[in-house]
Amino acid sequence: MKALVYHGPRERAWEEVPDPKLEADTDVIVGVDAVTICGTDLHILKGDVPEVTDGTILGHEAVGTVEEVGSAVRSVRPGDHVLVSCIAGCGTCRFCRETRYGQCTSGGGWALGHTINGVQAQYARVPFGDLSLYQLPQGVSDEAAVMLADILPTSYEVGVLNGGVRPGDTVVIVGAGPIGLAAVMTARLYSPSRIVVIDPAQTRRDAAKSIGADVVLDAELEPALEVVHSLTEGLGADVVMEAVGIPATFEMCTALVRPGGRVANIGVHGAPATIHLETLWIKDVTITTGLVDTSSTPRLLRLLADRQIDPTPLVTHRFGLDEFMDAYDVFSRPAETGALKVVLQRS
Amino acid sequence: MKALVYHGPRERAWEEVPDPKLEADTDVIVGVDAVTICGTDLHILKGDVPEVTDGTILGHEAVGTVEEVGSAVRSVRPGDHVLVSCIAGCGTCRFCRETRYGQCTSGGGWALGHTINGVQAQYARVPFGDLSLYQLPQGVSDEAAVMLADILPTSYEVGVLNGGVRPGDTVVIVGAGPIGLAAVMTARLYSPSRIVVIDPAQTRRDAAKSIGADVVLDAELEPALEVVHSLTEGLGADVVMEAVGIPATFEMCTALVRPGGRVANIGVHGAPATIHLETLWIKDVTITTGLVDTSSTPRLLRLLADRQIDPTPLVTHRFGLDEFMDAYDVFSRPAETGALKVVLQRS
Amino acid sequence: MKALVYHGPRERAWEEVPDPKLEADTDVIVGVDAVTICGTDLHILKGDVPEVTDGTILGHEAVGTVEEVGSAVRSVRPGDHVLVSCIAGCGTCRFCRETRYGQCTSGGGWALGHTINGVQAQYARVPFGDLSLYQLPQGVSDEAAVMLADILPTSYEVGVLNGGVRPGDTVVIVGAGPIGLAAVMTARLYSPSRIVVIDPAQTRRDAAKSIGADVVLDAELEPALEVVHSLTEGLGADVVMEAVGIPATFEMCTALVRPGGRVANIGVHGAPATIHLETLWIKDVTITTGLVDTSSTPRLLRLLADRQIDPTPLVTHRFGLDEFMDAYDVFSRPAETGALKVVLQRS
Amino acid sequence: MKALVYHGPRERAWEEVPDPKLEADTDVIVGVDAVTICGTDLHILKGDVPEVTDGTILGHEAVGTVEEVGSAVRSVRPGDHVLVSCIAGCGTCRFCRETRYGQCTSGGGWALGHTINGVQAQYARVPFGDLSLYQLPQGVSDEAAVMLADILPTSYEVGVLNGGVRPGDTVVIVGAGPIGLAAVMTARLYSPSRIVVIDPAQTRRDAAKSIGADVVLDAELEPALEVVHSLTEGLGADVVMEAVGIPATFEMCTALVRPGGRVANIGVHGAPATIHLETLWIKDVTITTGLVDTSSTPRLLRLLADRQIDPTPLVTHRFGLDEFMDAYDVFSRPAETGALKVVLQRS
Repeated sequence: MKALVYHGPRERAWEEVPDPKLEADTDVIVGVDAVTICGTDLHILKGDVPEVTDGTILGHEAVGTVEEVGSAVRSVRPGDHVLVSCIAGCGTCRFCRETRYGQCTSGGGWALGHTINGVQAQYARVPFGDLSLYQLPQGVSDEAAVMLADILPTSYEVGVLNGGVRPGDTVVIVGAGPIGLAAVMTARLYSPSRIVVIDPAQTRRDAAKSIGADVVLDAELEPALEVVHSLTEGLGADVVMEAVGIPATFEMCTALVRPGGRVANIGVHGAPATIHLETLWIKDVTITTGLVDTSSTPRLLRLLADRQIDPTPLVTHRFGLDEFMDAYDVFSRPAETGALKVVLQRS
Repeated sequence: MKALVYHGPRERAWEEVPDPKLEADTDVIVGVDAVTICGTDLHILKGDVPEVTDGTILGHEAVGTVEEVGSAVRSVRPGDHVLVSCIAGCGTCRFCRETRYGQCTSGGGWALGHTINGVQAQYARVPFGDLSLYQLPQGVSDEAAVMLADILPTSYEVGVLNGGVRPGDTVVIVGAGPIGLAAVMTARLYSPSRIVVIDPAQTRRDAAKSIGADVVLDAELEPALEVVHSLTEGLGADVVMEAVGIPATFEMCTALVRPGGRVANIGVHGAPATIHLETLWIKDVTITTGLVDTSSTPRLLRLLADRQIDPTPLVTHRFGLDEFMDAYDVFSRPAETGALKVVLQRS
Repeated sequence: MKALVYHGPRERAWEEVPDPKLEADTDVIVGVDAVTICGTDLHILKGDVPEVTDGTILGHEAVGTVEEVGSAVRSVRPGDHVLVSCIAGCGTCRFCRETRYGQCTSGGGWALGHTINGVQAQYARVPFGDLSLYQLPQGVSDEAAVMLADILPTSYEVGVLNGGVRPGDTVVIVGAGPIGLAAVMTARLYSPSRIVVIDPAQTRRDAAKSIGADVVLDAELEPALEVVHSLTEGLGADVVMEAVGIPATFEMCTALVRPGGRVANIGVHGAPATIHLETLWIKDVTITTGLVDTSSTPRLLRLLADRQIDPTPLVTHRFGLDEFMDAYDVFSRPAETGALKVVLQRS
Repeated sequence: MKALVYHGPRERAWEEVPDPKLEADTDVIVGVDAVTICGTDLHILKGDVPEVTDGTILGHEAVGTVEEVGSAVRSVRPGDHVLVSCIAGCGTCRFCRETRYGQCTSGGGWALGHTINGVQAQYARVPFGDLSLYQLPQGVSDEAAVMLADILPTSYEVGVLNGGVRPGDTVVIVGAGPIGLAAVMTARLYSPSRIVVIDPAQTRRDAAKSIGADVVLDAELEPALEVVHSLTEGLGADVVMEAVGIPATFEMCTALVRPGGRVANIGVHGAPATIHLETLWIKDVTITTGLVDTSSTPRLLRLLADRQIDPTPLVTHRFGLDEFMDAYDVFSRPAETGALKVVLQRS
C-alpha cells in the first residue's frame, strides 16, 4: 500500500510500504477513507519529537472502514464505518479505569503516528479497537467526522471542560489555529457572554469571527489587557485558553485571567515559561494542562449528529489520498495558503 | 492603649497609641485576649509589603471579647467571646456573593494589620463584624482557637481543598513551618494513605512526624523525586502542596506530582518561578493558588469543638500581651528557638 | 397607597393601605415600576399557604425605583433602578454563608408577600436590600427584568443546575407553565441535543415549541415513556424536570429518567408522592428539590444584558398597575386566556 | 466440584456440579479461597429475585487463585491471588466508559450468582476478568479482602461518596447490618464530627459503637428526630444513609435530613415508599440511589494495604468451604446468632 512515511527531520515521502497486519487480538485493520494533518505532524517533521523514528507512518486523525478485527474485538466488525480516534486505551490500567485514556500506561494513549505507524496511509492498524474506534452516526460526513479524531475533543476537554466555561462568562482564547477555532466552537456550547480571540493573523481572526468569536484582536497592535479589562469591569477574563504553545502566550494568559478564574493550557510546549507567582499567589487562579482523553468523543458525535456543532468551516483545503505531498505543502505554509485543516479522501 | 506598631522596614515598637473607635456601622471593637504573629508580619517588617505604612498596628490573628458594636452589626454583642478572622467580607460584592471573601472588592479581604490597624494591641477595630467574627464554642481554649484565625483555614482551603485530597492518596507537603504543619493536620481529615513532608530543618521534620506525617525528608540530603516515586509506583504524588513561597520549592512541587495530580500553592511568593510546560503540558496537572476565604471557618470551629482537630501542638511559645517585643524576637529566629507559633495572652 | 391585599381564601382586593416605612436599618423602600403574579399567589388565594394571613399584601416579583434606604444599606441609593428579588438573605447565617439565601434562618428567604407585605403595591418595603436588590443593566426593559425576580433563577438553579444539563443531553421538562418554559429557555444555555416538553395544553406546548423545545407531547394522548425511549436508545432521559407540583407528574419524571440520570423537582407540592424504590434503588438516579437561592441572579442579569436570554416571550398580557383585579382574573384562567406571565406597569 | 445451588424459593444444596469452563475469551476460571454470603442471597432464597433460576450457583463475593484465563485477558495469569468483585464491566459500553460498571449493558454489572453461576463453589467462571479481578496487595488477609468484593465499595460509593460526607458533618446511618457497619467504617475516612446509627438490635448497635459510631439508638424506644435535632441545632443531619431497604426506614431518612442535606439510599428495596414532597420540595435535598460500580475498589485496596481501614471486625463467624449449609443457617438467623458476615475458606 501507499503511506506518508517520516524519514528523519524534514524528510517525508508518499511511498509503497507493506500492508499492516493484526498484531494483537485487540487490533483492528482499517481502510482509510478520510484523513487530516495535525500541527503536531509538522513538529515531528522538524525533529522536535525524537521518539518518532525513521520509517514511521505519520497521522493520528482518520475516518475509515473496518477491514479485519482481532479475536478480542467486540464492538466493531468488518464493513463498519468508524472514526479513528487519536487516543487508544487499554481499558484496564489505573488511568483507563478513570477514563484518562490519554495517560494509559499499557500501550494506549497517543500511539498512532507516534510510537507506532499512523493513519496517513491506505490502511492502518489501530490498537485497542474497542476503545479507539467509534461507529459513525447516520448523516455525518467523513469530512466533519474526522475533525472529532483530535481537535474537537482536545479543545473541548482540555480547553472548555478544564476551563469550566459557564453561561455568561467572558472567555479569552489565545491562538486561532485549528485548535483555537475548535475551542471557540465548543466553548459556545456553554453560552458564554463573550469570546475574545487573540491572534496575529488577519485570516485566522476572520475565521474566528465567522465561527462565533465576539471580539478578535492582534496583541501586537492592541493592548490585550486593556481590551479584556474594558469588557470585564477591570477584573479580567473568567476563563483563558492557551492554544499556541510558546512561553509568551502562556504568560499572556496568566495576565488576562480574573481573580478566581481559570487558565486552560491546550498548546503543545517545547520550552519552559515564567509563572508570575508574585502576583498570582493571591489571585485564586487555577491552571490546567492536559492531553486529550477522548472521553467526550461519544458526546461530541451526538452533538455532531444532532447538528449542535458543525466543524466543516475548519476545513479549508481538500485533496485526494494520493496528494499527500501537496497537502503537506499547503498545510505547512498557512500564512500564504490560509490553511486551517486539510482533508484527504479516498477517491 | 498599647499596640505593636510598624515604623518602616525593621522598625517596630510596643507603644502607646489612641484607642480604636467605631468608624462604620458594621465595625466592632474587640478587646484582645489572645493573639499570634504570622510569617507575613515578618515579611512586612522586611519591607516586602509596601502597602503597609509607617504607623500601622500589625496583626491579623486574634481571639477577643466584644466591647462595642456598630449599629448595623447583628451577629455579636458586647461581652461575646469571639474569633477574629484574618479575612473580612462586605457580604455583597461579586466575590463575597460567591463566598470568596478573600477577594472582596469593597474593603474586606485581608485588611487587618495590612491596609488598616491590626490586632497586635489591647483593642482593635474589626470591620464587617458580622462576617469576620465567630462565636467561640464552649470548651475551646483561646490558644487553640487563635490558630483558626489564619493558618488552619489557609492550609485547609488553599492546600487541602484546592488540592482535593482523597482517602488513599499520597500527599507531599513542601515546607514544615506553621502553614505546612497545619496542612498535615487538615489533610489527615481525608485519610490519605501517606503524607510526605519535605523541610531542611530537623526540628520541623520532627514536628511534622509527631503531628502525623508518615515520611519526612530533607531534600538537600535525599533525592525527593526518588523517594516519592518509590512510594507511588513511579508515578508521583496525587497532591503536592507548596508551603514555602520560593521558586525552587514551587518547581520541586511540579516535579513531584503524578499525571492527573494537583499542585496547591499556599506559599506567599515574592518572585516569579519557572513552569516546565515542556513536560507538564501533557501531564493533566492542575495548579492552584489562593488567598484564604475563611469560608471554612465555621466547619473548622465545629471540628475543633468536637476534637477532630487539635492545633495546640503548633504553639511552641507563650507570652503575656505586653511581651510583644520578646515574642517577635523568638518568632523571627526559628532556627535557634524552634518557634512555630507564639501566642500572647492578656493576663 | 394602593395594594393588592389578601383577605383569606378566595378574597383579594386592590385597596388603600398605609405606605410602607423603614423598619430595620437594612430595609429599602422601593417604588414599584413593574410587577407580576406568580402561580404561588394563586395557591395562597386558595388558602394552601396558611402562614399568609389576612391583610397581607401579595407579590414577590418586581422592578422598581429606590425611594429610601436604611442606614446600613450600602449597595443601592435613592433613584436607583433595581430588580426586587423574591428571595432576601441576611448574609450572615449558616445558609447565607453558603449562598443558600433561600434557606436563610434570620428573616431572609422567601419573605415578600409571604411572611411580610409584598410588592403588588405602589410601594414596598424590601428587607436586606443589599442582598435582595440588583442594579439593572443598561438597555434592559422592566418587563424582561421582572422575569428575573423569580422564574428565571428558579428554573435555572432548581431545574437546570440541579439537573446538571450538559451539551448533547436529552432533557425532559414536565409542565409548560411559566416555570417550565423558563426551564426550556435556561436549559438551552447548555446546548442539550433535545428538549422534550410534556403538557396537556396545546397553547403551552406551542409556546414551548416556539421558545426552543424540540419535541412536545400530551401525555394523555401519547405514551411519554415510549417517545422518550425512542429518542434515547431505550435508556431514558439524561435529565428530567418536574414543573407542575402534583404526585402524578413527579412519578412520571422518575419513570422517564435513564440509569445514572437526574430528576430535578421544581414544582411546589401539596401532597406526598410515591417513589418506586423497587425499581429505582438500582438505577443510580439523583433526585433533587429546592427553593431558589437567587445566587445566579447576577449571572442571569449579565446574560440578559448580553442578549443570551430573552424572557419576553413569556409575557402574554400587560396591564396598568391599578388593573390588578383584572390581571388576576386573566392569570387565574390560563386555559381560557392563554396567559403565561402578566406584567403590570406603573403608567 | 461442589457448589451451593439454588433450587427455587427456600431450597438450596451444597452439591456436586460440573466444573466451570471458559466460555468467552475474556473469562477467567478462579479457584475459590475465601467466600462470603450476602443479604441479597437471602433475598434470592426467599424468591424475591425472580431472574435467578433453579440450578444457579449463588454468591458474588470471593477471593481466589487464577486457574485459567481466556485469550483476551491481559491483567491476570494462572497463580495470581485475586479479589473477585461482585461487578463485572465489558469496558466499552456507554456506562463502562463512564466507569459506571454496575450499569454495564453488555453482560457486565451484577452477573455472578444472579444471571450466571456464582462463587459459592470450589471454582468459578468470572466474566470480563480484566475489569472484575484485582491483584491482592502483600500482607492483606483473604478474610479482610473478601469484604472488598461488595460491602465496602457498596457502602463507600453508594453511601459515603453519593452522600458527600465532609469533615465536621453529622451523619446518620439507618441500619447496622453489614452494609450499615461498612458505611460507618468508610464514612470515618472523611472525619465527620458525629456518626449516629439507628438499629433495633442491641448487638448491632454495639457493633456500630465499637466500629466508630458516636451515637447509637433504637428508633422504637427513642425519638430519632429529637435526638438528631438535639445534635444539630434543630436542623437535621448533613447526610443520611438508608441501609435497610424498607419504606419505613427510607421515610425516616428523609425526615432526618437537614435543609440542603443529602439522603443516600443503599438498601435494596422490594416495595415503593412515600416521599413527602409537601415538605421536601422547599428543603434543597438531594436523594440518590445506586448499585455499586466498584470504581473505588483499587482505592479501597490501597487503604486496606495501608491499614487505613480494617474490615475484619465485620466477620463474626468462620467456616470451611464445605460447611456452606451451616454457614447459611447461622447467617440467616442474625438475631439469634449475632452474625454479621460469615467467611468460608478453603482448608
